[in-house]
Amino acid sequence: MSHPLFEKHRATLDGALSAIATRGYWSAYNEMPSPKVYGETATEDGKRAFQSHLGKKFELGQAGETGWHGGEQSPYGIDLGVQYPVSDVEALITAANKAMGPWQAIGAEGRTGVCIEMLDRLNKNSFEIAHAVMMTTGQGWMMAFQAGGPHAQDRGLESVAYAWREQSFVPQEALWEKPQGKNPPLVMKKHYQIVGRGVGVVVGCGTFPTWNTYPGLFAALATGNAVIVKPHSNAILPAAITVRYMRTVLSESGLDPNLVSLCVAPAREATKQLVTHPSVKSIDFTGSNVFGQWLIDHCRQAQVYAELAGVNNIVIDSTDAYKAMMRNLAFTLSLYSGQMCTTSQAIFVPAGGIDTDEGHKSFDDVCHDLAKAIEGFLSKPEVAHAVLGAVQSADTLKRVAEAESGVFGRVVLRSQKLDNPEFPKAIVRTPVLLACDAADEKAYMEERFGPISFVVKVADTAAAIALSERVTSTHGALTVGVYSKKQDVIDAMTAATWRSKVALSINLTGGVFVNQSAAFSDYHGTGGNPAANASYADSAFVANRFRVVQRRYHV
Amino acid sequence: MSHPLFEKHRATLDGALSAIATRGYWSAYNEMPSPKVYGETATEDGKRAFQSHLGKKFELGQAGETGWHGGEQSPYGIDLGVQYPVSDVEALITAANKAMGPWQAIGAEGRTGVCIEMLDRLNKNSFEIAHAVMMTTGQGWMMAFQAGGPHAQDRGLESVAYAWREQSFVPQEALWEKPQGKNPPLVMKKHYQIVGRGVGVVVGCGTFPTWNTYPGLFAALATGNAVIVKPHSNAILPAAITVRYMRTVLSESGLDPNLVSLCVAPAREATKQLVTHPSVKSIDFTGSNVFGQWLIDHCRQAQVYAELAGVNNIVIDSTDAYKAMMRNLAFTLSLYSGQMCTTSQAIFVPAGGIDTDEGHKSFDDVCHDLAKAIEGFLSKPEVAHAVLGAVQSADTLKRVAEAESGVFGRVVLRSQKLDNPEFPKAIVRTPVLLACDAADEKAYMEERFGPISFVVKVADTAAAIALSERVTSTHGALTVGVYSKKQDVIDAMTAATWRSKVALSINLTGGVFVNQSAAFSDYHGTGGNPAANASYADSAFVANRFRVVQRRYHV
Repeated sequence: MSHPLFEKHRATLDGALSAIATRGYWSAYNEMPSPKVYGETATEDGKRAFQSHLGKKFELGQAGETGWHGGEQSPYGIDLGVQYPVSDVEALITAANKAMGPWQAIGAEGRTGVCIEMLDRLNKNSFEIAHAVMMTTGQGWMMAFQAGGPHAQDRGLESVAYAWREQSFVPQEALWEKPQGKNPPLVMKKHYQIVGRGVGVVVGCGTFPTWNTYPGLFAALATGNAVIVKPHSNAILPAAITVRYMRTVLSESGLDPNLVSLCVAPAREATKQLVTHPSVKSIDFTGSNVFGQWLIDHCRQAQVYAELAGVNNIVIDSTDAYKAMMRNLAFTLSLYSGQMCTTSQAIFVPAGGIDTDEGHKSFDDVCHDLAKAIEGFLSKPEVAHAVLGAVQSADTLKRVAEAESGVFGRVVLRSQKLDNPEFPKAIVRTPVLLACDAADEKAYMEERFGPISFVVKVADTAAAIALSERVTSTHGALTVGVYSKKQDVIDAMTAATWRSKVALSINLTGGVFVNQSAAFSDYHGTGGNPAANASYADSAFVANRFRVVQRRYHV
Repeated sequence: MSHPLFEKHRATLDGALSAIATRGYWSAYNEMPSPKVYGETATEDGKRAFQSHLGKKFELGQAGETGWHGGEQSPYGIDLGVQYPVSDVEALITAANKAMGPWQAIGAEGRTGVCIEMLDRLNKNSFEIAHAVMMTTGQGWMMAFQAGGPHAQDRGLESVAYAWREQSFVPQEALWEKPQGKNPPLVMKKHYQIVGRGVGVVVGCGTFPTWNTYPGLFAALATGNAVIVKPHSNAILPAAITVRYMRTVLSESGLDPNLVSLCVAPAREATKQLVTHPSVKSIDFTGSNVFGQWLIDHCRQAQVYAELAGVNNIVIDSTDAYKAMMRNLAFTLSLYSGQMCTTSQAIFVPAGGIDTDEGHKSFDDVCHDLAKAIEGFLSKPEVAHAVLGAVQSADTLKRVAEAESGVFGRVVLRSQKLDNPEFPKAIVRTPVLLACDAADEKAYMEERFGPISFVVKVADTAAAIALSERVTSTHGALTVGVYSKKQDVIDAMTAATWRSKVALSINLTGGVFVNQSAAFSDYHGTGGNPAANASYADSAFVANRFRVVQRRYHV
């Protein structure tokens, strides 16, 4: 007898299963923040729900609550003032361990149904979550809605679909009947129980607190584990809202809400206590190399899935759509002020320039035209603010200032400080573009997170491809791109990406950008270069999160 | 267009795929060493093929050969005298890396077909391999044939089936067509390339040089990686024969034979150089905790799949088939002189004794009757030699002597030294059985590899189940068993094994033994307790051995 929530969401699951098998376009959650989709009052309801959190205590009713903590600073300069419960780490883990028994007992169908019900609930509250994402991360509204809401939910569902597929391959029981020649066969009944490996911790980042959290959160949960979400200290609200809705669904389903909890840790020691706890068996992390490597080195009791820094890069060899290429690049470098793990940082251009549909362009032409394209694209303030959003962290501002000082290379385009009329205290910066030589490796061969990119002069296209491969293999990348009219160049770049194991975008000149990764179609990260040791979402992302425990007896 | 070997072996693959989905009884390779199955001359041909290696140089034609090395000592006391090529580690790796390009290019179908052709070739030469296994490990003939030949081949095929299933889920290409309201859709063509993570190293053990090697070997190979086999210093021949047949199949298929190579390393430094090499991305290991933990700690560039030591255990609560239980246990403790990673070491018996179909039996009765059962089972020399085989290592002999000294507990049954008329120099020992108290944890709570087992006195059944769970969780186990007439005891033991993540055998009294693990049905290891961090073979065993690299462009 199937779990009622499994039956309720069977069509959604089937759609997701078909999508991960074909990886064409598919989406379960509508990306348009439209009243026709989300209801006539959804926009206002969501905004009010968000505002109702401000200046208040965010009640979760978790185990071992010892006090309250907040302190998020909005990049838009508004006052947030939300306080979150601080729980004793040991109490959270004890409660999580306790909640796992019934979660195991309802089986993969039950878990899958409950997880999709949770995603459905999150989807219905996308406006509330979008405001929380926007105001904590500095994303523009449309990105906050899409990436923070439906796209993140799609990534979560993608994980659930992979988790279901792998778990559904494990038969619940088998009759093993081994022939014995003329004698009667040996017959045994066997049972196979899927058991989660243990508590999962998901460590969120400050820029994409839902999109980068949901894959690991739902992968760990769907495979039978409890999950403790440890949000970034400046992006707690989207995580807290997420956890609260998930706990509500658990309670409604007669399950222990402590299966999913939020760990707000004012002191670094509490975080370390959490991630190194013997009961914690998986950690999903998005963030800096320093903390990520610390987790990998110190949390040996757990499987660590880490998305770290990288140096995303693009090789420009030639193009038959020069203007469109520049527009496409300008958008990529501007979107959310380059505060994406997929934003291109290094653009490799041959010293002799490139062939285009507008004639030959020198290296300096390319630098100049890219700067102009960015300026042009951001010339209308309403476009600029919608695209750029606000700068999430003071460190990013420092990096912009450092880049503008010229220490890393010639400044081709200065960053502009813009005033946002709607949010007078918002910190808004346009991209800074630098030019340097391939030999200046210290300048461009390290992630400089934020709106900072380099046009790098390389000897020729072959050298550019080799450099792209080396940068990706040694420093990591989530995305690379190539522009070329020549098939042999595209083939050489393709082969380079097979060796350096990075996703390649070829000749993007339209409405798709190298920094975009679509759920159910694009693998985000490959797990094969230093930028990430795992991909969202594939079999490898889920298969190692559960164990099969068998028992057998004669019949 | 399919690869011809994929077409040739499609039926075998389909059988294996169906078997891993249902996990009932299935086998691709016949376990009976019968002329009717393997051909009238197979027995003699295999023996001659084995003998033709003795005292000779075993030519492999590998990269970077610098000299020769041998020195295997047969537990049966015969002279082996085979010399194997020693290759420069860097040369082996360079050649392996080179061979991976074409191996990637033939795709998952081609790799799957070639791997099954290899298994088919190994199967046809099962007698040769069986003699090599028997004479290097000390296994009895029937076990050497079955576990060393068809059962190992079945485990290899099981890995290939899992690897194929996971790879076949990755579509080669997709058309991504995203609606844009009234505007034309965004359309992209995407390609997904499966890329092996890098060179795999498989470190063999001295007791099961094929059964414990084939799963990792074929899992790594089928998913697009080159493999270097590093055999145990005393069980090189079975690995060398295996590698030679695999290289032959590669050459016949127009592929580079250096995709699979043998690394015979007289100096420990060469092994360390091999396993820590940056090109090595996976290591499959079976053996001691010391070296296994060293690999996990030092080979951080690689995914390490490790099967280590454990303390397999059995809880006896009650039985309605006392004699059959004793016979079953006697066989388990005797088989291959307990030199199996699945042999039971600790048997937990309540201090108050047990209820049986022959009346109540005290703790001492159980000790005494188990000793009698072992003696009785091994009373006929031809049975004893067939079952016991010979002792593989001097360390095992030392452990037997230490156990007999009484330092670990009361000696219930002394080990006997038997003379094997066929092999006068063979070292043969019957099991030693000790009795001790649950409090004597230092005695029984550490793996004592070989024919050494403990009957451990515990307060009651509940304490026995709790002790079994604790031993398994802290020291690891591949197998546990329970004997009980009471469903609540079996349920409690079942729940304990879910927590400690270990396979449970219930009331084995017939022709199946707790130390047996059948391919395609039994998961060998769960990967959830210290005895092994992975299971043969499941999705988790293969899914993380390859990466998906995508490219996309507008159409």
